[in-house]
Amino acid sequence: MAKIAVLGFGVVGSGTVELIYKNRGAILKKTGVDLDIKYILEIADMSGTPYADKQTKDINDILNDDEVITVAEVMGGITHAYEFTKECLKRGKSVVTSNKELVAHKGAELLKLANENNCRYLFEASVGGAIPIIRPIKSCLAANEINGLAGILNGTTNFILTKMLKEGMDFSDALALASKLGYAEKDPTDDVEGYDASRKICILSSLIFGRHVYPESVYCEGITKITAEDAAYAENWGGAVKLIGSVKELENGKILPMVRPSFVCGGNPFSHISDVFNGIAVYGDAVGEVMFYGRGAGKMPTASAVTADIINAVQTRGESFPLEWEECSAASSKDYIADYQDGDGAFYVRVQSMTEKQITELFGAVEFLTRASKPEDESAFITPSMTERVFNEKIAQIKLNLLNKIKVFEE
Amino acid sequence: MAKIAVLGFGVVGSGTVELIYKNRGAILKKTGVDLDIKYILEIADMSGTPYADKQTKDINDILNDDEVITVAEVMGGITHAYEFTKECLKRGKSVVTSNKELVAHKGAELLKLANENNCRYLFEASVGGAIPIIRPIKSCLAANEINGLAGILNGTTNFILTKMLKEGMDFSDALALASKLGYAEKDPTDDVEGYDASRKICILSSLIFGRHVYPESVYCEGITKITAEDAAYAENWGGAVKLIGSVKELENGKILPMVRPSFVCGGNPFSHISDVFNGIAVYGDAVGEVMFYGRGAGKMPTASAVTADIINAVQTRGESFPLEWEECSAASSKDYIADYQDGDGAFYVRVQSMTEKQITELFGAVEFLTRASKPEDESAFITPSMTERVFNEKIAQIKLNLLNKIKVFEE
Repeated sequence: MAKIAVLGFGVVGSGTVELIYKNRGAILKKTGVDLDIKYILEIADMSGTPYADKQTKDINDILNDDEVITVAEVMGGITHAYEFTKECLKRGKSVVTSNKELVAHKGAELLKLANENNCRYLFEASVGGAIPIIRPIKSCLAANEINGLAGILNGTTNFILTKMLKEGMDFSDALALASKLGYAEKDPTDDVEGYDASRKICILSSLIFGRHVYPESVYCEGITKITAEDAAYAENWGGAVKLIGSVKELENGKILPMVRPSFVCGGNPFSHISDVFNGIAVYGDAVGEVMFYGRGAGKMPTASAVTADIINAVQTRGESFPLEWEECSAASSKDYIADYQDGDGAFYVRVQSMTEKQITELFGAVEFLTRASKPEDESAFITPSMTERVFNEKIAQIKLNLLNKIKVFEE
Repeated sequence: MAKIAVLGFGVVGSGTVELIYKNRGAILKKTGVDLDIKYILEIADMSGTPYADKQTKDINDILNDDEVITVAEVMGGITHAYEFTKECLKRGKSVVTSNKELVAHKGAELLKLANENNCRYLFEASVGGAIPIIRPIKSCLAANEINGLAGILNGTTNFILTKMLKEGMDFSDALALASKLGYAEKDPTDDVEGYDASRKICILSSLIFGRHVYPESVYCEGITKITAEDAAYAENWGGAVKLIGSVKELENGKILPMVRPSFVCGGNPFSHISDVFNGIAVYGDAVGEVMFYGRGAGKMPTASAVTADIINAVQTRGESFPLEWEECSAASSKDYIADYQDGDGAFYVRVQSMTEKQITELFGAVEFLTRASKPEDESAFITPSMTERVFNEKIAQIKLNLLNKIKVFEE
């Protein structure tokens, strides 16, 4: 029997405990692993729950118990989670986590510590909730050179953008609805500014390219400036506006991780991913494009991923694996991570008081777009492909006319 | 260094060999596994290839070489592949395969043999080509009770149906185009009659529910009777006709595996999966719906899955795992697998020379559909939900009027 400790009895923690006891027999039959929870670390009173006898308020109970071989860190936050994870790993206890903030900021250090102590640090639940993505990249796609990936990585913003596109809502009304339905946090900054998606792109970029990518290296643009008008142009064009996190290798050998609202054409599967669903496409030299789709958050979906990692940690106890990725210092990251302006592609632009002639003189052969009740002096168009540096120079020339600009997504 | 043998140097076999040597260094770095191919079993002359020195025409060279610990069976067919696989497993050599026919017919026996000999029989490449599906079900979703799955499992038929829907082609023209582009075999029977998809549903059903499901137990309907008219009604309705393989647990505890053309509504992601792409949705109690999407066939995508299994077989050498699924005799399968007529749902029906009154008297409150240039005396509609037994009784009453009928897909 594998003795487990769960750090935190919040949404994901309680879901993990419930799921393990609900499906314990089926898990044993399918995987040969018999899970038993010995401790739940929680400050709040648990006396009303069926798991009160497992509660401890002292991490040392867990650290000092050699029977506990795997720990699920589902507390969130950085400070305590970081300290507790380090102490567990130092004692050879594998740690699995849903804590994307911690992995994005401290992943390289914690993976190294796990490696040195012959245990695992696993984080499937930190990206894409229920969607299997970390393990498929590590194992199912192991024979591929992966050149990049892209994804809708945040359910809250995808819900908001879906409402703006399909029901013509403006950003603030759609955000209010998301809050009302429990899809947005009280402080929605992390979601709407793209920080949550950015952490996930850090984790995925690090995994694919083998060196830690920190949030401060990721170009990040949120969705707060997207308007119902932009969404209407996208829909009329046959596509959608989506918040896309992506990373790819440029021709100069550097990688370009970014999170930004993007015009996605109707032929791309991302344009059909609605509401709180997430989708992640991985591009490999042998497989071409493979996409994973499902619920990117939520109590039981996230608990499913945490529990799968617990099972995997138990199954692979004592085995050694190569280090997932290495540290990347601030200095070396400059040689490794491209300036976002080195990327290229087409852009959607919405302007006022410009003639077609002025537009085409500046941007070249653009594709003009339209929408219902478009004002006379408003124009919207898709530019030809150019580097973002060149694009920014052009945009700087029409500051007063510019209403909005959004990158067009390309694989 | 892990010494490997590859049985067969056809499309998948040569792809596997090429991929292993192309990405050998990257595979070693990522997984710690250094792959080296010692033998390629092939009758045809390989002297023009870079791998001629590895050729053998005698399986005994491989069977008797203790250095060879993992064998990739990519020959296809049943007879030799079955014998060779058995002999390898008996000697404790793990076998990985892309041979869906063999797994669908002999999986239970070969898995048991692998289990008894403490080696692996892995078959990720047998379903969904490049798409990771077998391992995600076994590991990433291990904490879930999986209640069912559904998928577009055959690229050839999906290409044909896409052409019928988007370009109004009829079946035979679309099939001819698929042949011309190399998407259809010389004898396309296995694809267009649904047999290929049926084998994949056998494998997935066996894996999810733990008992072997044989092709003869799967209700199977191909796409040869689908017309451009049916596709036009589906498109007008906002959806598409897709060949869907599915399995689910009914309320009576039996499972219902089937392959059939299906009306898929526009809100379902399947309706947007076009051309030769495959998509598989898995329904679990914790994750809800998770979908996997990508190229379901092709040389390098399939080679990617074969190679990932080789790596996994090497990594887990000597470990023991629970048996994936058990034998299910013809007698016990009757208590286990439902009559397809016990399933229920709505149906699309196309008739001629029937009044609205006659139709609603027979089927109840139907939803009438339309299409461009619909003949006066043709009607098409979606029925209310009913068991297929009741539906068949109704259909039997309008034999002369019936033009076509297609099940409406429901998760």
